[in-house]
Amino acid sequence: MQFVIIGGDAAGVIVLEQTTDVSYSACGMPYNIADADREMDDLVVRHARVFREKQGIDLRTGHRVESIDRDSKKVKGKNLRGEEFGISYDKLLIATGASPIMPDLPGFDVPGVMALKSLEDGKKIKDYMRAKDVKKAVIIGMGYIALEMCEALRARGIEVDMVKPRPVFLPWMAEELASAVKEEIENHGVGIHTGHKIERIEAEGNTLRVICPDLVLEGQMVLAAIGVKPNSELASKSGLELGPSGAIAVDRTLKTNDEDIYAAGDCADAYHVVTKQKAWVPLALRANRAGWAVADNVTGKKTELQGIVGSAIFKVFDLEVARTGLSVAEAEKSGFDPVEVVIKTRSRAHAHPGSTTIHLQIVGDKKSGRLLGMQIVGKEGAVHRIKAPSVALHSKMTVEAFSQCDLAYAPPFSPTWDPMLTAANQLLKKL
Amino acid sequence: MQFVIIGGDAAGVIVLEQTTDVSYSACGMPYNIADADREMDDLVVRHARVFREKQGIDLRTGHRVESIDRDSKKVKGKNLRGEEFGISYDKLLIATGASPIMPDLPGFDVPGVMALKSLEDGKKIKDYMRAKDVKKAVIIGMGYIALEMCEALRARGIEVDMVKPRPVFLPWMAEELASAVKEEIENHGVGIHTGHKIERIEAEGNTLRVICPDLVLEGQMVLAAIGVKPNSELASKSGLELGPSGAIAVDRTLKTNDEDIYAAGDCADAYHVVTKQKAWVPLALRANRAGWAVADNVTGKKTELQGIVGSAIFKVFDLEVARTGLSVAEAEKSGFDPVEVVIKTRSRAHAHPGSTTIHLQIVGDKKSGRLLGMQIVGKEGAVHRIKAPSVALHSKMTVEAFSQCDLAYAPPFSPTWDPMLTAANQLLKKL
Repeated sequence: MQFVIIGGDAAGVIVLEQTTDVSYSACGMPYNIADADREMDDLVVRHARVFREKQGIDLRTGHRVESIDRDSKKVKGKNLRGEEFGISYDKLLIATGASPIMPDLPGFDVPGVMALKSLEDGKKIKDYMRAKDVKKAVIIGMGYIALEMCEALRARGIEVDMVKPRPVFLPWMAEELASAVKEEIENHGVGIHTGHKIERIEAEGNTLRVICPDLVLEGQMVLAAIGVKPNSELASKSGLELGPSGAIAVDRTLKTNDEDIYAAGDCADAYHVVTKQKAWVPLALRANRAGWAVADNVTGKKTELQGIVGSAIFKVFDLEVARTGLSVAEAEKSGFDPVEVVIKTRSRAHAHPGSTTIHLQIVGDKKSGRLLGMQIVGKEGAVHRIKAPSVALHSKMTVEAFSQCDLAYAPPFSPTWDPMLTAANQLLKKL
Repeated sequence: MQFVIIGGDAAGVIVLEQTTDVSYSACGMPYNIADADREMDDLVVRHARVFREKQGIDLRTGHRVESIDRDSKKVKGKNLRGEEFGISYDKLLIATGASPIMPDLPGFDVPGVMALKSLEDGKKIKDYMRAKDVKKAVIIGMGYIALEMCEALRARGIEVDMVKPRPVFLPWMAEELASAVKEEIENHGVGIHTGHKIERIEAEGNTLRVICPDLVLEGQMVLAAIGVKPNSELASKSGLELGPSGAIAVDRTLKTNDEDIYAAGDCADAYHVVTKQKAWVPLALRANRAGWAVADNVTGKKTELQGIVGSAIFKVFDLEVARTGLSVAEAEKSGFDPVEVVIKTRSRAHAHPGSTTIHLQIVGDKKSGRLLGMQIVGKEGAVHRIKAPSVALHSKMTVEAFSQCDLAYAPPFSPTWDPMLTAANQLLKKL
């Protein structure tokens, strides 16, 4: 059987990859950029030659697929030398990923205005920093990548300003928690400018200026990190159905509406276990898991993915930030009757040295009593803790059942009642 | 209604406490002992006067209850001045805790041979260390308290030897994980001597000698930390039923076999959600939770506790140690058909700086596919991570369902697949 894959990163055999890089840790790029002495290629998990020589995979880099002919079951495109190719498939996997959104505004095409998605992008940024001896940078956007890049640039001693049009810093996050994150970033000397419409970028010598109606920020480098969009044009052009945010619609076996075409990774959508609706959450674990599930399904072992619950974590300076499930606004939009509790507590037991603050929000549904979501921010114990409510969301647990869980205690790690239990107990009184 | 409580720590409107201390963080004692400059009274969570003056609780310290007359519904005893008292109750809570087991061997009664359970014990140990300028100590036993005390004594610059009769270091723990813990302790200069029967302790001047047939260990202090037993004699004498390990048997509402008598805390047993059998797990969260549930049930709000799943965590030097659910041996004993996987992996993503080793064991049931337990050892991310499988055990999740959970990923915190998922995926192939 001829199994063809378009895209060569987390899901992966004829593999057709338009760039020359395959199988690298994209999420690791900000941390690599933070360290001037490390090579970007450290992030390569498996080199092309390993796929080719040890795994017998026909990996063709520099091959850009331009169309899928579903009737004749053929993909067509051009390689880097401009030569056309046509390859037949029995089963096809589209794993084309996502791309950064670049605003269609004047000046975003000048050198020094960059985005971070591919390994190539990462190299470009790092080379540019070295060549231009960047002292000051502006980041447009305040999502995960923007925040991780802000930390990376500060680690290199670069002054950073962040700017975005929307007025709220982290709109999906409970206000008290978002304030704690903002404070952490500002304490590291970063300027956060929300609510400023970006009009254009102007270049003058080595200086780039981000121009807003009421603000001008300047630096030698501008990073556009306003978000990503699924690379689904190829799929769409060939008549495959799209889901939320224009991602390729797939069922629990990762199959598109074409019996012989699968999609996996950042280009495809997923079921959200809590909302029971489709969602587009382009994150590495889902991408990787979907790739494996396709491999199972193509080779005859039927695998169905339950779906995601909206878990995401990141680190910013000394703070861990974690979320799972739904925010209050998301819960309302999905037809729940959400009630929340926000607490501020200690990371360690009474009188235990080294304790820091934990901020935690819990959301439950007044109608069903179900746990709907949790967010945690703190210097320790936020990120791994969130995995417990993630499991509870998969189990469709009630807040009451969650509040009874045997979450172990020892003084270096929490008060006797884990902050998640304290919040659940308080929420129970409101349900 | 007259509500009488015997015992004044974690569970607790007449409260009769035989010592003079109430409401303190017993689990915090090793960490307090580690710091010569801190007062033991830092561990008091709420002083007796707060209970008396602000909460209107009739707290009588120095009151030792000696018998319960269930027919006349009266408790009788003596106070510190030797005066007899008799108090009627409508509802009674027995919250008498547990006591350290002291071996019935020669020399365990000499000064300098001590155990750690009450705040008084903690003070005695700390005073003794100060008075005798202890340079060398022997710990008998290798359970949680023994290991935490070993760390505390090393923090004070004291040389430590640990000894116990059983040959296996941590018998409930997967071998590879136990080895990692042992190595960490030995790397901190502690002598671990397993498989040595203790015959007696001999004192000569300031020196105490722990005598085994084939080994003599000496120091200025000996800590007996071989385990605890429930303080259930009072209950037993008055005809209340006992459960495993001689703990007072209670139902899900914490009621004993007497309609008007409850028991909570380390003196009482619990349901184990995984084995569906009674278990005695004297830990702080359960004690605290049981106290609150009794308060609910006595005041008319019916609360039933689901039970425990066998979660326990501790820190020893730079290592986090965590367990939940059943070991292979425990699973076999409970009629399951256990299969395990043990993995050794990185705590952070590929190429991420600062990564350390995570050891993880997962246990599943071949018959039902259910997740039965997990153990994790590592320098970071062991303790909070274990809360996810704890929730899964409460939900009676299968390994397959657990393996599909959306456990968030970011490079500073794990490989793309959380080690728990990697282990679950491997276990699936064996089920």
